[in-house]
Amino acid sequence: MPHATPRGPRRLAFGGDYNPEQWSEEVWAEDVALMREAGVNLVSLGIFSWARLEPREGEYDFGWLDRVIELLHEGGIRIDLATPTVVPPAWFYRAHPEALPVSRDGTRWAFGSRGAICHSSPAYQEAAARITRALGERYGEHPAVVMWHVHNEYGVPVLECYCDISAADFRRWLAERYGTVDALNSAWGTAFWGQLYGDWEEIQPPRLTPTVANPAQRLDFARFASDSALANFGRERDLLRELSPNAPVTTNFMVSPTQCDTIDYWAWGREVDLVTNDHYLVAEEPRNHINLSMAADLSRSVGGGRPWLLLEHSTSGVNWQRRGIAKRPGEMARNTLAHVARGSEGGMFFQWRASRAGAEKFHSAMLPHAGTDSRIWREVVRLGADLDRLAEVWGSRTVADAAVVWDWQSWWAQKLEWRPSEELDTRERAEAYYAALFDRHLTVDFVPPEGELAAYPLVVVPALYLATAAAGENLRRYVAGGGTLVVSYFSGIVDEHDAVHPGAHPGALREVLGLTVEEFQPLHAGRSVRLTGPDRAELTAERWAETVLLDGAEPAWRYADGPAAGGPAVTRHQLGEGTAWYVSAHLGRDDLDAVLAAASADAGLPEHDPLPRDLEVVRRRGERGDYLFAINHADAEAALELTAPGEELLTGERVTGKLAVPAGEVRVVRVDR
Amino acid sequence: MPHATPRGPRRLAFGGDYNPEQWSEEVWAEDVALMREAGVNLVSLGIFSWARLEPREGEYDFGWLDRVIELLHEGGIRIDLATPTVVPPAWFYRAHPEALPVSRDGTRWAFGSRGAICHSSPAYQEAAARITRALGERYGEHPAVVMWHVHNEYGVPVLECYCDISAADFRRWLAERYGTVDALNSAWGTAFWGQLYGDWEEIQPPRLTPTVANPAQRLDFARFASDSALANFGRERDLLRELSPNAPVTTNFMVSPTQCDTIDYWAWGREVDLVTNDHYLVAEEPRNHINLSMAADLSRSVGGGRPWLLLEHSTSGVNWQRRGIAKRPGEMARNTLAHVARGSEGGMFFQWRASRAGAEKFHSAMLPHAGTDSRIWREVVRLGADLDRLAEVWGSRTVADAAVVWDWQSWWAQKLEWRPSEELDTRERAEAYYAALFDRHLTVDFVPPEGELAAYPLVVVPALYLATAAAGENLRRYVAGGGTLVVSYFSGIVDEHDAVHPGAHPGALREVLGLTVEEFQPLHAGRSVRLTGPDRAELTAERWAETVLLDGAEPAWRYADGPAAGGPAVTRHQLGEGTAWYVSAHLGRDDLDAVLAAASADAGLPEHDPLPRDLEVVRRRGERGDYLFAINHADAEAALELTAPGEELLTGERVTGKLAVPAGEVRVVRVDR
Amino acid sequence: MPHATPRGPRRLAFGGDYNPEQWSEEVWAEDVALMREAGVNLVSLGIFSWARLEPREGEYDFGWLDRVIELLHEGGIRIDLATPTVVPPAWFYRAHPEALPVSRDGTRWAFGSRGAICHSSPAYQEAAARITRALGERYGEHPAVVMWHVHNEYGVPVLECYCDISAADFRRWLAERYGTVDALNSAWGTAFWGQLYGDWEEIQPPRLTPTVANPAQRLDFARFASDSALANFGRERDLLRELSPNAPVTTNFMVSPTQCDTIDYWAWGREVDLVTNDHYLVAEEPRNHINLSMAADLSRSVGGGRPWLLLEHSTSGVNWQRRGIAKRPGEMARNTLAHVARGSEGGMFFQWRASRAGAEKFHSAMLPHAGTDSRIWREVVRLGADLDRLAEVWGSRTVADAAVVWDWQSWWAQKLEWRPSEELDTRERAEAYYAALFDRHLTVDFVPPEGELAAYPLVVVPALYLATAAAGENLRRYVAGGGTLVVSYFSGIVDEHDAVHPGAHPGALREVLGLTVEEFQPLHAGRSVRLTGPDRAELTAERWAETVLLDGAEPAWRYADGPAAGGPAVTRHQLGEGTAWYVSAHLGRDDLDAVLAAASADAGLPEHDPLPRDLEVVRRRGERGDYLFAINHADAEAALELTAPGEELLTGERVTGKLAVPAGEVRVVRVDR
Repeated sequence: MPHATPRGPRRLAFGGDYNPEQWSEEVWAEDVALMREAGVNLVSLGIFSWARLEPREGEYDFGWLDRVIELLHEGGIRIDLATPTVVPPAWFYRAHPEALPVSRDGTRWAFGSRGAICHSSPAYQEAAARITRALGERYGEHPAVVMWHVHNEYGVPVLECYCDISAADFRRWLAERYGTVDALNSAWGTAFWGQLYGDWEEIQPPRLTPTVANPAQRLDFARFASDSALANFGRERDLLRELSPNAPVTTNFMVSPTQCDTIDYWAWGREVDLVTNDHYLVAEEPRNHINLSMAADLSRSVGGGRPWLLLEHSTSGVNWQRRGIAKRPGEMARNTLAHVARGSEGGMFFQWRASRAGAEKFHSAMLPHAGTDSRIWREVVRLGADLDRLAEVWGSRTVADAAVVWDWQSWWAQKLEWRPSEELDTRERAEAYYAALFDRHLTVDFVPPEGELAAYPLVVVPALYLATAAAGENLRRYVAGGGTLVVSYFSGIVDEHDAVHPGAHPGALREVLGLTVEEFQPLHAGRSVRLTGPDRAELTAERWAETVLLDGAEPAWRYADGPAAGGPAVTRHQLGEGTAWYVSAHLGRDDLDAVLAAASADAGLPEHDPLPRDLEVVRRRGERGDYLFAINHADAEAALELTAPGEELLTGERVTGKLAVPAGEVRVVRVDR
Repeated sequence: MPHATPRGPRRLAFGGDYNPEQWSEEVWAEDVALMREAGVNLVSLGIFSWARLEPREGEYDFGWLDRVIELLHEGGIRIDLATPTVVPPAWFYRAHPEALPVSRDGTRWAFGSRGAICHSSPAYQEAAARITRALGERYGEHPAVVMWHVHNEYGVPVLECYCDISAADFRRWLAERYGTVDALNSAWGTAFWGQLYGDWEEIQPPRLTPTVANPAQRLDFARFASDSALANFGRERDLLRELSPNAPVTTNFMVSPTQCDTIDYWAWGREVDLVTNDHYLVAEEPRNHINLSMAADLSRSVGGGRPWLLLEHSTSGVNWQRRGIAKRPGEMARNTLAHVARGSEGGMFFQWRASRAGAEKFHSAMLPHAGTDSRIWREVVRLGADLDRLAEVWGSRTVADAAVVWDWQSWWAQKLEWRPSEELDTRERAEAYYAALFDRHLTVDFVPPEGELAAYPLVVVPALYLATAAAGENLRRYVAGGGTLVVSYFSGIVDEHDAVHPGAHPGALREVLGLTVEEFQPLHAGRSVRLTGPDRAELTAERWAETVLLDGAEPAWRYADGPAAGGPAVTRHQLGEGTAWYVSAHLGRDDLDAVLAAASADAGLPEHDPLPRDLEVVRRRGERGDYLFAINHADAEAALELTAPGEELLTGERVTGKLAVPAGEVRVVRVDR
Repeated sequence: MPHATPRGPRRLAFGGDYNPEQWSEEVWAEDVALMREAGVNLVSLGIFSWARLEPREGEYDFGWLDRVIELLHEGGIRIDLATPTVVPPAWFYRAHPEALPVSRDGTRWAFGSRGAICHSSPAYQEAAARITRALGERYGEHPAVVMWHVHNEYGVPVLECYCDISAADFRRWLAERYGTVDALNSAWGTAFWGQLYGDWEEIQPPRLTPTVANPAQRLDFARFASDSALANFGRERDLLRELSPNAPVTTNFMVSPTQCDTIDYWAWGREVDLVTNDHYLVAEEPRNHINLSMAADLSRSVGGGRPWLLLEHSTSGVNWQRRGIAKRPGEMARNTLAHVARGSEGGMFFQWRASRAGAEKFHSAMLPHAGTDSRIWREVVRLGADLDRLAEVWGSRTVADAAVVWDWQSWWAQKLEWRPSEELDTRERAEAYYAALFDRHLTVDFVPPEGELAAYPLVVVPALYLATAAAGENLRRYVAGGGTLVVSYFSGIVDEHDAVHPGAHPGALREVLGLTVEEFQPLHAGRSVRLTGPDRAELTAERWAETVLLDGAEPAWRYADGPAAGGPAVTRHQLGEGTAWYVSAHLGRDDLDAVLAAASADAGLPEHDPLPRDLEVVRRRGERGDYLFAINHADAEAALELTAPGEELLTGERVTGKLAVPAGEVRVVRVDR
């Protein structure tokens, strides 16, 4: 895919959501003046404006938007224009109450917040197409409109709808997927608990049942929900491509698994012209910059490695978290530039000016309630200037050292009830392995289970409960071809229908790993087991262990006690040209390092870099050279040895040898070729 | 307002809820005999009797009630006669299932407990008026009926109803409040998240939404709910005033914020002839007598300082608390007399005789299951005699030393979702400041934000998130005129529509406090910050800090560490003739004392009294003198110095100089003028 | 009642649930071969097969079942044939959505798990009768069908249905119980909170109310729910008795209070030909074999002491628990043989072969996913052989040392809201006293409150909140006749309508205990009180204490501190020929031992046996002698002294004097007469 970006100059985007309809027109002029002062060059406009634009069905009021667009355009500020389809007007719901979504227990959500949409509703689909067409026709060729922002954050706050309209749509989707009811019965394993269907009309969404519902039914419904929203996105995108052929069409993702768990971004990444992402720091989490980096790497990966754009983050505290912890001085800039390091072509915020009313009035903004005499405003202005200094990184591409296999559908499947332990947690494992790789200063690409792996010296599978036979074969081929693979426990267990692969666990991965799992050994709450390995290195596991039977693999660590005492715990399998490691126990983030060190050696990765732990170092490769981003998250100065001299872009200084990065600061060096 | 009380002799009321319909008629005679033994002189009758009085629509059976009333009258026991409108009969709901209330998520509550009423239901309103009229006509002139007890505990267990009838009523209420839909859009800030309304009919109650609903909509719905119940109270009151002009009309409040959070008692206090209140000790809370005193002070305050009447409390344990901890010997009398000290004209209980059946059979009573050979009964008899000894305090008025600003609507607003920290807690702050004042032995009046303050040397605002510009001006005028004000953090933030006041926080209070808040600094869970102040006094804050910019105020304490390190934490602003203190941090109850000591000095209040901490001392001022109540909550004897000699009313002894109060006992001295 | 068992040879049953419809026919032959290898002699078949047997209403497909039955029959494997009425087909629900049950808050459960049935639905009742008749007609005389398995686990996952059909059925049930509405009003105490009914049609199930519903209404609805399911069982049973007169009819109970809390098994035990039970180990609980033994004793007791059959347990971990902890080596056999020791005529499992799909694919099975090269399979094969070696215990009867009074209805009543403390917990007390008796190596029969007690030297009443006057008299007569009774607190409080017995607590037991309880003294969370008794023995109580007034009883332990300090805590009452102990405090399991030791001495039970704590010893009495089961749950060898020589059946060895039981092993000795 080509590198689609907002139309306009090759510079990093800077700005935020702009909601002028919350303010009187006098304020608009001040807004544009202050935007210019801060270096804002792009705003997202009109996200929640449907009721203002179409106050009654089919009657439009574009005057105010015309004026805002002209003001911005005159100010040199480009526009990411939204279709406002995330909040249909009140009149729409009065006419179509059936378009409000229904929860799993049968409650119909009400109008009055946002995103209350049954994506299967024909009435909604028609109304959304109508306002999209009207906007496309009016502004499709406007020079200030450089990108289209369809809808907003599909998937949150609610995606699934269990109403009868959705039920019919689900049946249609199933009929397309399975062809016959018999095929569905087989795929869903309905022989279990006597759930055989005889007719499509008998099938319903997995509404609330007195005990656990059929897991395959639930998994398919999750797929259907993601697909039905994607179809709506596609409808709007196609209209806009027709009416505004020069501006890329996007919708803002929330790829971080801490933020959205209902969208299959692998599928969605293929459908947008440019990946854009919203990321919010988990304010109370220690070292929360790691979660940020993971989100950034995911954003780049779902776009196939292309540059992307951070469309929302926050200047400071966020009021929908338990405690809206304010960012420390410098933290906002570190956050923004970490996204840029990992491929974002800029940094945008929610939102430009803090709202006086509504649900998010205590959400930080570029222009806070306190006004311009404030730390936040001063840091915003500085950040705008810094991004300008970095203009030349535009178009360069982040360089990855390793790959992590991640799959939304497998996560959905694993989260269903009645797994062998409630402490199984796909997201937690992905984050733990990601953090261990981060602490080894390895930059990571994410890859889907059947994706291309050959380019990576090291591939890590933190938790892949659902793995098709094809995914298993993909991993086998990768190893046989010389790759180094690390697989964590409870991976390769079920097929795409949540059915256990025939034979012993892990069905899809027995061959590549050279072993079988005789029995899962979930541990008692609070208990741990010890693992002993090479050089008497001892590790500790909690939550999970396994009884492993070797079939080609060799033990690297063994259980020293617990229910699998004496048996293999971490194994290594030489297969063809490569090596496959298996970690059968739940190791903490730090203990994972020992395993990853051993695997990294197999992979030929350089010895663990003697970099300070909280100095994040990432490279973007561009036409003029490599851009080395060094982000110091610590409270003390840190330094790293440059492989070649270069120019530091933020200070303009020439750097040779050691690059010093002051506490809390960022340095970006264009390393000489 | 005049001092309305139950008709009859000027003596303190003593008795309880009496539910004779639960017992056969033989028991009634025993009841009256035992009531006389205990000194009971008032009972609340007929609260749950609707189905007995009107067994079928329009058919009445008053015979049994006639007999009960005669029995009581003959026994010299006065009657607080109830309208039984809190529980309509089963036949009513069979005919009008739509009168059952609907919860926010759409569940219609069922008949079978109590208080399941849609206050907007015309059917309910008509039926309630009919039974009220029937009772008023029959008993309005009966000499034993000395007060009317409308309904029961409006507001609990449920007040809000989200049904379609309520929705129409809500629209009517909104139309009256706002006039036009445009005005409502502006007030509610519907531009945020695209919630603009075009027609009244589009507006609904704030039913369950997939994420946070419009906060102004929710706040108005809370106001509407309180108002709609108040309208029903008013309908019954007006009927009774017409039919029974000589008996005051009341309804029993639950003013303590620990007990009811849905009624705006400032508005309700104006509508009753006499404030009556129900208070239940939070049995497991340490020093729970402080909460009791706060409830008593609130009861007096919502009646504008007039004497009031404690209509329900408990003799011992309460079965709807997690653990029905029994009262210790003497505790019941201390409780009752603390209410009397703070203005109650007596002490009534739920209930006279413990029920054998139903939901509250394990609730303590005046006559327990164990009968008269029991600690409880012996203490009840003693209390009846003690209240007789205190008859002369009737009509005297409690003397307050300071005022606390409290507002139900501000509390409702602050409790809505997505505030800057989930640890913000209006009620907690009010209780903490109240406790700190209590421990300084200051008796407190509560005042609404726009209420009259000039009479108080010290005014404390513990948490007033919502403060109108008029309230801000009221406080400013108070200080400028010589008052001493203490304001705690997160006050003055929003206007009556939950919209942030323009400009920096705290919009309504910037001028009086002489500062702005640049940024809120909610603290991480479990973390604390230190404050250093005059004479190196060090305080500790948790949960909340702020970055404060001074604009006239001076720092008294500064943050020694944490996110606002070095900045002002507690400030003092001299304005006109007075002083305004601001406490930007969450201090514990004990640390608040340091700030209140400094402010008290400004206010010219006497130095912290060297009274024992758990000796509660309150004065009532009467025609014959001041009545000094000394309640010893401790396990050891305590003493206080009398300013003048006097007569101790419970022992009949003459006291001069030191008044000794034995452990757990109460003394009431009429101090000589 | 006669000893009904599955038809066929007098041997212990061994096998499991068999669900061939989940597998292709090729697998069936392998199944039968492996069953024979393992010694399987009985399988439960067809539990979830309705949709396979009746794919469209009235159209049957028995061919596959014929083939399975023939295969099993040829293999010598007997069949416990199920009526599949626990999961009606999808077509049934499409035609009869009203047969899906409705929760208390009005949510209608959906199809897609299991057991979603409104037991009052005529449509369901007709459809269930039809498939039952069809199966009975076809297989009623088949020689392989040796038992009928009606439905599955009545009572879980849901029993109560609050729909309008159920409401009408409930009214019918009430009319039968009470005759007149007035009688119901009196029984339910509807005078409280004004809930008087005037007409049957006004009465509803106790749907969700804004606060606590009428407890008598809730209790009756729980009874009705158990009865309505029992009526459905009876309908199927009567059909099968008619069509298959030689095979006993059962339904698998879940008598353990940890597993099902909605069925009154005293009533149900009378209606089955043979009690069968499902028991699942609470995997994470320490010493969980005690809970198992309690379930086994309950199973025997609800069948009146007759042998019974363990119809389901697990070979290893269970996936619906929080953590599916795998069984340790030998644990499965100990579990099975403990059931046999306590009267089970065999040991059956859920399920034969692990499912690949559905909700329970991670539930252990006899044939695990890992196949036959696995610890589980090897232990299954060994267990089959061991049960063969024990064939002669068939028909012998377990010998009990003491009785525990247990009542489901009392438990239901106590669990309702607003008891004097939320920490009151009937189940916990029953388990605690059972464990204390277990640790004294006493085998226990359970008895209903009005059941026959004379045969037991010791009777324990751990928690019997609801006790009729007749139950009180039953206990009084038992003591007066020479028995030794131990009663724990909060027993004998209410009658069958949840109404407090007139007078002081404990109304039904004042006479037998020789005391009254003046006041309950629930303790503050986390606080404890000390008890001092004979020889300065000190005990500690938490949660609960009482103020006790003696009226014939004598204090054995007194409260040393706390709210009842100085008063009696544990009392002893000599009455007629016997003794009644009362324990007014909540003692931990270990402290209970002191009281039980004293009571055991009164009962003339032998001194506390010097047996190792975790050596479980139980006797079955047969025609050829006593079978002494010794189950060593500890990790070290244990031994016990035999009273007479005998033959150890599992090893075939002759044993005299000391019987050594290796760590984790079981020994079964036929002791010589």
